Amino acid sequence: MRIRLDIAYDGTHFRGWARQPGLRTVQGTLEHALGRILGDEPRLVVAGRTDAGVHARGQVAHLDLDDAQRERLFTQTRRDAASDPVERLAHRVRGALGAYPDVTLHRTSVAPDGFDARFSAVWRRYEYRVADLVSGYDPLERARTTTVRASLDVEAMDAAARSLIGLHDFAAYCKPREEATTIRTLLEFDWHRADDGVLVANIRADAFCHSMVRALVGACVAVGEGRLSVADAATLRDAGERTSAFKVLAARGLTLAEVGYPADELLATRAQQTRARREKE
Amino acid sequence: MRIRLDIAYDGTHFRGWARQPGLRTVQGTLEHALGRILGDEPRLVVAGRTDAGVHARGQVAHLDLDDAQRERLFTQTRRDAASDPVERLAHRVRGALGAYPDVTLHRTSVAPDGFDARFSAVWRRYEYRVADLVSGYDPLERARTTTVRASLDVEAMDAAARSLIGLHDFAAYCKPREEATTIRTLLEFDWHRADDGVLVANIRADAFCHSMVRALVGACVAVGEGRLSVADAATLRDAGERTSAFKVLAARGLTLAEVGYPADELLATRAQQTRARREKE
Repeated sequence: MRIRLDIAYDGTHFRGWARQPGLRTVQGTLEHALGRILGDEPRLVVAGRTDAGVHARGQVAHLDLDDAQRERLFTQTRRDAASDPVERLAHRVRGALGAYPDVTLHRTSVAPDGFDARFSAVWRRYEYRVADLVSGYDPLERARTTTVRASLDVEAMDAAARSLIGLHDFAAYCKPREEATTIRTLLEFDWHRADDGVLVANIRADAFCHSMVRALVGACVAVGEGRLSVADAATLRDAGERTSAFKVLAARGLTLAEVGYPADELLATRAQQTRARREKE
Repeated sequence: MRIRLDIAYDGTHFRGWARQPGLRTVQGTLEHALGRILGDEPRLVVAGRTDAGVHARGQVAHLDLDDAQRERLFTQTRRDAASDPVERLAHRVRGALGAYPDVTLHRTSVAPDGFDARFSAVWRRYEYRVADLVSGYDPLERARTTTVRASLDVEAMDAAARSLIGLHDFAAYCKPREEATTIRTLLEFDWHRADDGVLVANIRADAFCHSMVRALVGACVAVGEGRLSVADAATLRDAGERTSAFKVLAARGLTLAEVGYPADELLATRAQQTRARREKE
């Protein structure tokens, strides 16, 4: 039995998503809370392995319950108000997470047939917030906003961002990792000034390589400052090599906003086809 | 020479605006920073003396520079980039506040003739943010949002809020203080759900007595929960006595959004009239 978890967190005081011994991570915190309820700590599979300091509004993970965990969950005790076992799991996890106001479980549901939080995801959408001298500094937004001491040209940044859209090798915007492809489809990338004057980047791709969003927004900020031209963004991309022409911006401005999955029916059809193929072999 | 300061802060880690010995307050922090620049710590006069935990986006204060402070400020040193003395003051205060990311100086300007941050203010506008079970919990917004474990009826809350508008004795919604009037003109009070699902109250009055906003929004939340009727809000107000029918909500949801002043010309005319009257006497 596979359970889907929809999660949000303030990444400020987490050393990122991925579990690391002795460090406070989102995965570690959630697995510990789940372990208190299920007996054994499950292993979570996640859509976006966010770095230290990166936030999430629409993170998605899954876990598989073994028979013992499932039985434990389905055995209702008198103290449980909710009667649906999945509701009960959500309720208990929220209770176990109560001590941590920087992470929350938005929704807990039985995953549809064929669902995998990581491998079924068809796109990830991020937002990046930058305050410049025009927008000013809002102390209440500091946890999720990067500050730049310049007046940025948002039209130029938007033009540079849009010029990068499409299927390309983004090696120039990726921290190199062995055996990881840097070819990605950038589906959306644009900039606008929000009502509070902060510059917001909306960026969506099938997947991102390591530090890619923060490098892309860094190049756009260099364009907004006039240190790079609009055309440079695509030229640097096509050069294919990391450069010092722009900075990789801080994690604090970055939020994983949303993860896209195919419709349940499509996932189920694919899962059935895979099973049929395996039976034939 | 009177200087106007436009200030914003995250109130979470301040014991309110007003200076208190041994406690971290916004006034204390700002006066200390100003003292480092002006030689002596000035006394700030403020539009809204916010309580512990209350935030501000549009707080206004003023200070008067004596001749020695003015001379000190107008004596430019080589290290100062800005040539305008008021710009230079702002620049130096920002430098002195740099260690405190939870308070910022938006703007520093020479106050118009007749301006007093407290007594010239003709209205104060606050916002209050409540997350309920419908809006969900956003870890990134927790510093400025109160959480209520119920599904709130925003239409009923909005109707209750609007029924309170006008010139009334708000003793039922005020923490009693000696010699302080509880008669206030409530100019605006309404509720809506923001894009992120959070309930936001917009509330504007000539002035507020102590804990008044938090009592008013508390009564509306009781209406939204169905514990009070829409009509009860005005009935309780007219009864004129504090009641336990609703709670005074937490400071964390409250932000001083804006302070309204008359046009500069009107302030100057009034100041001239006052001076002329004094000369006659």
